[in-house]
Amino acid sequence: MSSISIENVILDGKNTCVRIEGNRFSRIGGAPTAADTVIDCREKMAIVPPFYNAHHHAAMTLFRGYADDMELFKWLNEYIWPAEAQLSEDDICIGAKLAIVEMIRSGTVFFNDMYWQPAGTLRAAREMKVRAAVGLMTICGADGELLPKCREDNERLLAARSDLPELLIVNHAPHAIYTVGEKALRRIAGEADEWGLRIHIHVSETAKEVADCRSAHGGMTPVEYLDSLGIIRADAVLAHCVHLTDRDREIIAKRGAVAAHMPVSNMKLCSGMFDFEAARRAGCRVAIGTDGASSNNNLSMFDEMKFAALTAKARTGDPTAGNAADILNAATAEGARAFGIDAGVIAEGKLADALLIDLDRPCMVGDYSLVSNLVYSADPSVVDTVICDGEVLMRSGVIPGEADIVAAAREVCDKFRRRN
Amino acid sequence: MSSISIENVILDGKNTCVRIEGNRFSRIGGAPTAADTVIDCREKMAIVPPFYNAHHHAAMTLFRGYADDMELFKWLNEYIWPAEAQLSEDDICIGAKLAIVEMIRSGTVFFNDMYWQPAGTLRAAREMKVRAAVGLMTICGADGELLPKCREDNERLLAARSDLPELLIVNHAPHAIYTVGEKALRRIAGEADEWGLRIHIHVSETAKEVADCRSAHGGMTPVEYLDSLGIIRADAVLAHCVHLTDRDREIIAKRGAVAAHMPVSNMKLCSGMFDFEAARRAGCRVAIGTDGASSNNNLSMFDEMKFAALTAKARTGDPTAGNAADILNAATAEGARAFGIDAGVIAEGKLADALLIDLDRPCMVGDYSLVSNLVYSADPSVVDTVICDGEVLMRSGVIPGEADIVAAAREVCDKFRRRN
Repeated sequence: MSSISIENVILDGKNTCVRIEGNRFSRIGGAPTAADTVIDCREKMAIVPPFYNAHHHAAMTLFRGYADDMELFKWLNEYIWPAEAQLSEDDICIGAKLAIVEMIRSGTVFFNDMYWQPAGTLRAAREMKVRAAVGLMTICGADGELLPKCREDNERLLAARSDLPELLIVNHAPHAIYTVGEKALRRIAGEADEWGLRIHIHVSETAKEVADCRSAHGGMTPVEYLDSLGIIRADAVLAHCVHLTDRDREIIAKRGAVAAHMPVSNMKLCSGMFDFEAARRAGCRVAIGTDGASSNNNLSMFDEMKFAALTAKARTGDPTAGNAADILNAATAEGARAFGIDAGVIAEGKLADALLIDLDRPCMVGDYSLVSNLVYSADPSVVDTVICDGEVLMRSGVIPGEADIVAAAREVCDKFRRRN
Repeated sequence: MSSISIENVILDGKNTCVRIEGNRFSRIGGAPTAADTVIDCREKMAIVPPFYNAHHHAAMTLFRGYADDMELFKWLNEYIWPAEAQLSEDDICIGAKLAIVEMIRSGTVFFNDMYWQPAGTLRAAREMKVRAAVGLMTICGADGELLPKCREDNERLLAARSDLPELLIVNHAPHAIYTVGEKALRRIAGEADEWGLRIHIHVSETAKEVADCRSAHGGMTPVEYLDSLGIIRADAVLAHCVHLTDRDREIIAKRGAVAAHMPVSNMKLCSGMFDFEAARRAGCRVAIGTDGASSNNNLSMFDEMKFAALTAKARTGDPTAGNAADILNAATAEGARAFGIDAGVIAEGKLADALLIDLDRPCMVGDYSLVSNLVYSADPSVVDTVICDGEVLMRSGVIPGEADIVAAAREVCDKFRRRN
């Protein structure tokens, strides 16, 4: 079992030593002892939990900047869908690896994914040694049956599921109520029980989705409708939740489901603003995600936290809303908890996921509050070292193999550039 | 006259060579020729204009994270004002230098400042070789007269004005209509004419400011009132402009004044959202600024551009609003133009202000649109090299003297930490 000794590191404002044995923190404090890897932080770095990205479409990095500043349906019909139809599973793997190096650079060690050909994303996560939840995506055709493309994708993912390391999770990922029929949703709820899978679904992202649902389902909101089908349940991850009623929040809180909040994507696509404080007051669990690169357009949880804090204030007109500690907690501990990962805090016995933050970056001074600086001021350049499950993924800003991944991704983009 | 040859650099999507002689671009294209400094970009970097920060309080980096997530008046009365009263001119100089290294790291070569003891800020800008506009700040007491503290500060700034290099500008900076009386505003308008100074003032930042102005000045908005006093004029920089009427926008456009837009600060303090599209349609000049670090909390124009684009969409519900090209133009060319700086585009004959952007960063791929990537995806880590007025301020991420500045700033912060 390999060991890491992180010495002269700042934890909660104090200089200490953090020891990792295998994939867990084995000791906080005390004198340093011999280890396979020694990282001396010389009191210039803080150790903090990393980020857990609660909703993502990793391979969409391949379409970053491909089409912006346009109406949703024009964007989907004329740009994204025709391009996606040309992707191979290898392309998806390369796009997901590009996403993963960007996420590592910005301090993220886990992402919850929903996309075509998920076996490609799973392979990328496995090779890059990050945590991920990858979804059996369900989209139905006009006949209410699973699209053949989804069926093939999901068969390949299920086949890859047999020997998964603990870092990787397979979810059931019905896309949304407007793309998956009632019969399929009932089947998914049953399979999720039977197979022990989490459910990941887009819910109440736009006002149109809510209005259409109310008229199709006897006045029920998407949350009420999905609750009637058994989809709103403990640990279900409900992506967006922009348009919730008080009753919706009650249901989500009572069932123990998790609202995944993506403030940048919601603003960029003009979907509206999630009410962070109302969700918190109602007792809902809230995690934070970046959504895919083509509606963000980066994967930085620093950007996402700042937008989450500021949209919480804008939504309510109250500058005390979305305070830095609550937002940081949603991006770290609540994200890990949502996926049953025993991490998200730096403490003895917890899984060894951590960031070393360079406190000498100008944006980290004044240095009155590390929490405030992480949420409001930091950018990915403050992340010096990233540790996931006791493995060092980035050290002093270097990720092995990064240049090859970037070059490979650029080559995939060439396919779409010619048509642009 | 020193020369720089930037070779194998990407400009507007094409590989070229850019030559700088003295402080101007002397040639774009052609074969490279001998130069004092050669930077070979090996086709991995793009040359783009840097950012011009249109409204700032640089030394407030010393209060970054000192107090967040609270009501404006509690924040000012209990935290910021008591702390500011303890600052020396040397402290201000150190705080401004900290701001300048952070701005250089994030690609900014100019800032327009309004703060106490401006001679300290001017000294910092001079020593760090960046461009700056520094304000003769006016705040009046209850008697309608300039505060003695302001008078002393301004005398020191005027004394320092005699031998300024071209990089530095002195402005007239009446704080706002609620801190400066009518008599003082009329005097400032006259002095600005006589001395050839730009005017920099906070205008229509909050709904309260507008309501108070209307009741005090016969129904006039702050813009109408200031226009009646001769303050709204060509090149006047109007900070915030969150609450404008159509008539206000007409006045600003007609006079040729500049609206300085600070979307992050406006959201953090719950001031409201500037209407970027309405300003653009009315023909107003718009530049972008970060405001001070204690209401942002960083100085990254990348953050600011993303918030500007997304608030433009949120304000109107139109995803085509605040398109990336318009936002980038406001942060670069329009910012330079607002202060009469013959820069903001990479072209022969223009002042040699430029960034070299590392295109191999994961967040810069897909690489379909550099403009989109700069506005929506980039963070300060993409800035490799910063050139201001023909001088290299940062090369390969290294700014000479940075560590000493960070250490000195942390020492100033100790003064406030003890009271926290």
